[in-house]
Amino acid sequence: MGTIGGVLVQWSSLVPLATFGPHRDGEFALIDWIRRHVDPHPRLTVGIGDDAAALDLGDEQLALVATDMLVEGVHFLFSEATPEQVGHKALAVNLSDIAAMAGIPVAAVVCLALPRSEGQELGRRLHSGLARLAQQIGVAVAGGDTTSTDGPLVISVTVIGLSPPQGPVLRSGARPGDRLLVTGPLGSSRSGHHLDFHPRLDEARCLLQSGGLHALIDISDGLAADLYHLLDESRVGARVRASDIPMRPVPAGTHDGRTPLDHALCDGEDFELLAAVEPTAAEALLAASPISDLTCIGQITSGTAAELEMPDGRVLPLPRIGYTHPFDPGT
Amino acid sequence: MGTIGGVLVQWSSLVPLATFGPHRDGEFALIDWIRRHVDPHPRLTVGIGDDAAALDLGDEQLALVATDMLVEGVHFLFSEATPEQVGHKALAVNLSDIAAMAGIPVAAVVCLALPRSEGQELGRRLHSGLARLAQQIGVAVAGGDTTSTDGPLVISVTVIGLSPPQGPVLRSGARPGDRLLVTGPLGSSRSGHHLDFHPRLDEARCLLQSGGLHALIDISDGLAADLYHLLDESRVGARVRASDIPMRPVPAGTHDGRTPLDHALCDGEDFELLAAVEPTAAEALLAASPISDLTCIGQITSGTAAELEMPDGRVLPLPRIGYTHPFDPGT
Repeated sequence: MGTIGGVLVQWSSLVPLATFGPHRDGEFALIDWIRRHVDPHPRLTVGIGDDAAALDLGDEQLALVATDMLVEGVHFLFSEATPEQVGHKALAVNLSDIAAMAGIPVAAVVCLALPRSEGQELGRRLHSGLARLAQQIGVAVAGGDTTSTDGPLVISVTVIGLSPPQGPVLRSGARPGDRLLVTGPLGSSRSGHHLDFHPRLDEARCLLQSGGLHALIDISDGLAADLYHLLDESRVGARVRASDIPMRPVPAGTHDGRTPLDHALCDGEDFELLAAVEPTAAEALLAASPISDLTCIGQITSGTAAELEMPDGRVLPLPRIGYTHPFDPGT
Repeated sequence: MGTIGGVLVQWSSLVPLATFGPHRDGEFALIDWIRRHVDPHPRLTVGIGDDAAALDLGDEQLALVATDMLVEGVHFLFSEATPEQVGHKALAVNLSDIAAMAGIPVAAVVCLALPRSEGQELGRRLHSGLARLAQQIGVAVAGGDTTSTDGPLVISVTVIGLSPPQGPVLRSGARPGDRLLVTGPLGSSRSGHHLDFHPRLDEARCLLQSGGLHALIDISDGLAADLYHLLDESRVGARVRASDIPMRPVPAGTHDGRTPLDHALCDGEDFELLAAVEPTAAEALLAASPISDLTCIGQITSGTAAELEMPDGRVLPLPRIGYTHPFDPGT
């Protein structure tokens, strides 16, 4: 571990940690600070704190904006990923954010900081991987910026999309009784999934069409962390059944003492959707199976506690844990 | 030189270089390649090759998207710039791109790759500089992404705006006879201007309101390079009078043998506007002075040659020269 996605806060057994754990010391402390220091704006319908921003540009549908930056050595290693895969991932993580608003992506812009040596060739191969996914999804590659760097390669992509006519689906709409659904297996993304995943845009549309979709987030920081993001924004709690969480097999040769459940709860970079869906609509979705891997893992509760029901019947508080980018707190 | 804006192609006297000079070997070769490999899209009205992209999101006004990335050691040095200035610049360069489409900026998203040491403090100070400008201009800070890096600090900003109702003003609309106007002095931006410039949004609106604005670009790569960008897209030529180019004084202690004209033509990062304006409208603008530093430096000609009329009467071909990010050509 530790080679992609920042630093894993070790969690080798299901002992609950402090409720406000390591998350608050890293990138999330900075994001919280920025969020408190940002002015409201009449055109900004959804700002910091959801998967994408929503802007009122005067149209019936809101414009959605998602942006993500990948850094060589943090989010990928060229010893494990081809440049085409990195280009694919840089676009896909943003499409996943648009999916998490139940939106439709329209166009992408791409910023690249390339090492001077082999920069041309790297740039072309990154673009090829990105453009292939853009074509599959029907997204325009609209422009960008290319610069040189003496450091690791950095690629940042911004995707502009459109919200559903009824407005984007936010993290904040979950209600007690809603079923918690996930669109695919979780954990061990590092074994390859994080480089070639397909963003869950079609699955988001199915969830939306159920008529009962109350809240949505994509799982990028890990199920535990992203569930808390959804719960915090919705001001509700949850009960998750550990035995119902779909888990990606832990690759052979991984001997870090962590169980598949550990991985599923906190690895991150799954880029599956976590949805809170009204019970009747959830039952209909699960029965009709328009989404092949859709699984119910628990439900929303009143209060603010998130609990994990273990296979042996114990009920444990779900730790706030997952990937975070650590920074010195500064002064 | 060489500490900001990539590599200066030395040009210590006004000897013309090859028409397709060093520009084609660096970032521009990659951008050309990407431009040739990008698919058209029904919602993409203006794609790669202008200051910003224009998207048809179903509204009367097109959405504009500009994006730029700044890398520590390439675009700024922390020995010369405060974090607040870097945040200001990261937003301002994008606002300059929106101004170059005669657009109105609406919102910005910000990606930051921060060193782990002092990352929190740096992040807060960068945000403060950016947010101050956003508030002055009336731009929403809508979201972003924060990550850690082992390399130099990288900040990329994407600005979403709205085009004028009549459509964005492109690089491609210049016509023979148009006057070439610039909004302020050029050259020696490195002495401080590149860190604290105010994007020329108001000036763009004045130019637009003249009724004769045919083409517009912001001067980021240098007057010579950006004039060629405008001429190439418009398929026209130009005659520029060297003695009419407004020049920023070369700071005392700069002993590189280059004249103020050298600096004005190829330093880059001026972030002034270069406009092609129909002659009567240009005369009216210059007479009424709604833009304090507006200067006519020449005019558009038929053909594709760009010529420089020297103070001594010689007419020289204008070299294609300016800042570029050099990369190995690759295979």
